[in-house]
Amino acid sequence: MSAFLIVTPTWDATPWAKAMKAARPELDIRIWPETGRVEDITYAAAWLPPADVLKGLPKLKVIFSLGAGVDAILSDKTLPRGVPIVRVNDDDLTMRMSEYIVLQVLMHHRQQRRLDENQRNKIWDQFPTHAAKDMSVGIMGLGVLGQDAARKLAMMGFKVRGWSRGAKQIESVSSFAGHEQLDAFLGDTDILVCLLPATAETDGLINSALIAKLSRKGPFGAPILINAGRGRQQNEDDILACLNAGTLHAASLDVFRKEPLPKESALWRHPRVTVTPHIAADSDPAAICAYLARQIENFEKDGALQNIVDMRHGY
Amino acid sequence: MSAFLIVTPTWDATPWAKAMKAARPELDIRIWPETGRVEDITYAAAWLPPADVLKGLPKLKVIFSLGAGVDAILSDKTLPRGVPIVRVNDDDLTMRMSEYIVLQVLMHHRQQRRLDENQRNKIWDQFPTHAAKDMSVGIMGLGVLGQDAARKLAMMGFKVRGWSRGAKQIESVSSFAGHEQLDAFLGDTDILVCLLPATAETDGLINSALIAKLSRKGPFGAPILINAGRGRQQNEDDILACLNAGTLHAASLDVFRKEPLPKESALWRHPRVTVTPHIAADSDPAAICAYLARQIENFEKDGALQNIVDMRHGY
Repeated sequence: MSAFLIVTPTWDATPWAKAMKAARPELDIRIWPETGRVEDITYAAAWLPPADVLKGLPKLKVIFSLGAGVDAILSDKTLPRGVPIVRVNDDDLTMRMSEYIVLQVLMHHRQQRRLDENQRNKIWDQFPTHAAKDMSVGIMGLGVLGQDAARKLAMMGFKVRGWSRGAKQIESVSSFAGHEQLDAFLGDTDILVCLLPATAETDGLINSALIAKLSRKGPFGAPILINAGRGRQQNEDDILACLNAGTLHAASLDVFRKEPLPKESALWRHPRVTVTPHIAADSDPAAICAYLARQIENFEKDGALQNIVDMRHGY
Repeated sequence: MSAFLIVTPTWDATPWAKAMKAARPELDIRIWPETGRVEDITYAAAWLPPADVLKGLPKLKVIFSLGAGVDAILSDKTLPRGVPIVRVNDDDLTMRMSEYIVLQVLMHHRQQRRLDENQRNKIWDQFPTHAAKDMSVGIMGLGVLGQDAARKLAMMGFKVRGWSRGAKQIESVSSFAGHEQLDAFLGDTDILVCLLPATAETDGLINSALIAKLSRKGPFGAPILINAGRGRQQNEDDILACLNAGTLHAASLDVFRKEPLPKESALWRHPRVTVTPHIAADSDPAAICAYLARQIENFEKDGALQNIVDMRHGY
């Protein structure tokens, strides 16, 4: 008998258990810490699992990560060796992330915050605006999420550039790859969108030095930052300093070095910062469990798994 | 000698004169009220022209309306008979209108105002959200602007419905036509987007009776209104009453019965209303004058004009 263990210490596991039961009724679903007989457990679905939990499952065949970023799994240094880790790659999650990116880009492009302030002050000001083709959006990270956002932004009329470790070919998107093309990419980017995975290489990447390399040729004379990747990628003191110095025009941040964002952070009340609580692409249990059920079905038929994490790159 | 008269009493004409000179340097460009010899004037470009101005041009061959809506021209009851009126139909204007519609739909869909309020109060609340496929957006008016917005909303994942006088075929969009299908369209619409032209038929259309027919099956239990058509189409007292009664969830209004919106209007400070100052698709002089120059070139070659207003329908 095959059992499926849900390990989500920071989330309520109930909706996940319900959704998984609906997607694959024959599974014996268990919720950590009520593991039952550990020898029954062949599948685990986890988000921020505590140390030794997954390691203590002798018959484990597959680990499913319940979010787009696998750093929440890989932070468990006691992961069992040789057990494949599968990333979520789900249309619902992709659609939601693109909604967030398109929404935030349009809010900056159309100066919604200036309109909001005018509304509060009952000011009718038809200030001139610019066309989308005059704004260059640069996306760091061209995985499934980055590619979908890039296509949708191009369709809205923006000039879209993308940067990734290896070169990618995406219609209507100028691609830059690797460390040697990073500066050229940044110099051509008015709005920087970060969708990178959290790895040692991307840690602290968004700092004053990187912001200084962004384009100043855009309509606002200073660049804009949107981070929906991971908080560890950003230096929040640098971002605040650049905003206050005017070298960064505005920012939309969905992720933070410490989450929830501490009350004392100056980001909460900065007039040029939009703070959202790590909801850019929330995981919908029904959609994700349907994906897990399809993966399990294929795996039990012929051992095939999709979207296995490449441990060399960490995503 | 062919002269081109700009008649924009409520706008600064200078950028229009400059853009038209750049687009067609050989034109003799004049700015009302400095008309010079009226017999020279063969073309007029106007927005809200005063009475008798266009009528007083004996050699006028074409009138160009400088916005997407031609009601600003047709409100001049002294228009000369038999002179064709040409609408602006310009990619730049279409792109900008779709930006506005997609932005406002996404702001409602992703509950940006709730996120804004949480940010002001430093509240980290990851409330559950819904997928775009669970939200039905209904567009009234399927001209060039409505069709482009419909396609982009469909691509973002929304269920899109459209309503127009005559039936239209648009990929991924369910079309409804004419008075007899209006109720079915409204009953299936969670977010109503109004992009109708201002005609006698659409005057006061958005009132309590219409709002009562909208869907209550959407994620918020009450419908949302976005009006980027014309202010005359909306009954503002009805909209406020429905918002306060909870039969309308929220509204984004770019147009008003009286513009600028009077300071005493309760719309300015209503917590569920986004007010923008008729900027959904502002007219970019360079883009529109390039369009006018192409029209004049074709007209002088073989008398051809595109996008002539159909006076029977008033748009």
